[in-house]
Amino acid sequence: MSRWTFYSAPGTCALATHIALREAGADFDLVKLDMGAAQQQSPEYLRVNPKGRVPALATEHGVLTETPALLAFVAQSFPAARLAPLDDPFAFARMQELASYLASTAHVAHAHKRRGARWADDPAAHAAMQAKVPQTMTACAAYLESQIAGPWAAGERYSVVDGYLYTIGTWLEGDGVDLTQFPKLTAFLARVAARPAVQRALAEAQPA
Amino acid sequence: MSRWTFYSAPGTCALATHIALREAGADFDLVKLDMGAAQQQSPEYLRVNPKGRVPALATEHGVLTETPALLAFVAQSFPAARLAPLDDPFAFARMQELASYLASTAHVAHAHKRRGARWADDPAAHAAMQAKVPQTMTACAAYLESQIAGPWAAGERYSVVDGYLYTIGTWLEGDGVDLTQFPKLTAFLARVAARPAVQRALAEAQPA
Repeated sequence: MSRWTFYSAPGTCALATHIALREAGADFDLVKLDMGAAQQQSPEYLRVNPKGRVPALATEHGVLTETPALLAFVAQSFPAARLAPLDDPFAFARMQELASYLASTAHVAHAHKRRGARWADDPAAHAAMQAKVPQTMTACAAYLESQIAGPWAAGERYSVVDGYLYTIGTWLEGDGVDLTQFPKLTAFLARVAARPAVQRALAEAQPA
Repeated sequence: MSRWTFYSAPGTCALATHIALREAGADFDLVKLDMGAAQQQSPEYLRVNPKGRVPALATEHGVLTETPALLAFVAQSFPAARLAPLDDPFAFARMQELASYLASTAHVAHAHKRRGARWADDPAAHAAMQAKVPQTMTACAAYLESQIAGPWAAGERYSVVDGYLYTIGTWLEGDGVDLTQFPKLTAFLARVAARPAVQRALAEAQPA
């Protein structure tokens, strides 16, 4: 397989796929975009990913985006790493159910803090969205607390969705969530943070 | 396998999974919730799906939610129906990439028309969100137009994501999108609507 290129940006959900790639032992080049300088909207990057977002993974077959799709792709591309229950459709669907919730509910709720311009033009509406983020993210945290079945989200075995839950979990305090209400989630975040692949991805994901 | 129960509601994204189940030839009981009567928030239904949303699929292993996860689950549970490229991780990821976009970008943009209370409490903010829906959904339609690779989203073979793209595609005109700008998408919607499994799901999904 030709070498992959992974496009990321510090402080974004791209960390979830970055963690998955390091857990898998994938060989890839890392490109970190500076979103403060709007590099994700540069002509060069829009040729890679016309959405102007991260993550994006350039592979020998083409460019892939969208975290849930990337997580399953990494797990399926490195089956020996056993990063997803690939032989059990129900267990695989459970993992994907959590990834989809994180993408379409939790990440979306979080985005209403600083990305309100996606959904309304009125600055007063942005302020109203920001004001509700602690409430919506606390509701997300309560749901996530209920989804941690064992040491990992899926139970006994670590999977790619754990790095995604970790990534969004690290946003909760900044979004006004009182983590002391969620002891399983708090312990989970510490367990993920201690993994060598996660430590490596976190170090690599720092701003240049 | 014990008989499944599929929980749906007229006019919702549950249609996508309903179509997939009919395309697969699955045997299931259909329960249609009346969202006008808030049946999705009833104590009985919250025992099935604590999220209080549709779709939900009760299987012999437990209840599954989230459309992208359900679509892949149906395809993997009925491999003979060939509803997803199950043996090609990249092609499978492409399909999942589109499903994830539909869930976390297109459906979310649409929801800002009538579900603004999820993200802000101020009625003026809801009005500001509604006002932007034609713009955001037109941007989504332009992206979706670019994603139709052949007769179907993935190219030559129909897949479960086509029923999802169809479902959200039928919302576009009501969201203020001028479909005449998007001829590939318009033709795609007509192709999907003509499929017998889609006709059956549409008839079954009518309000009781």
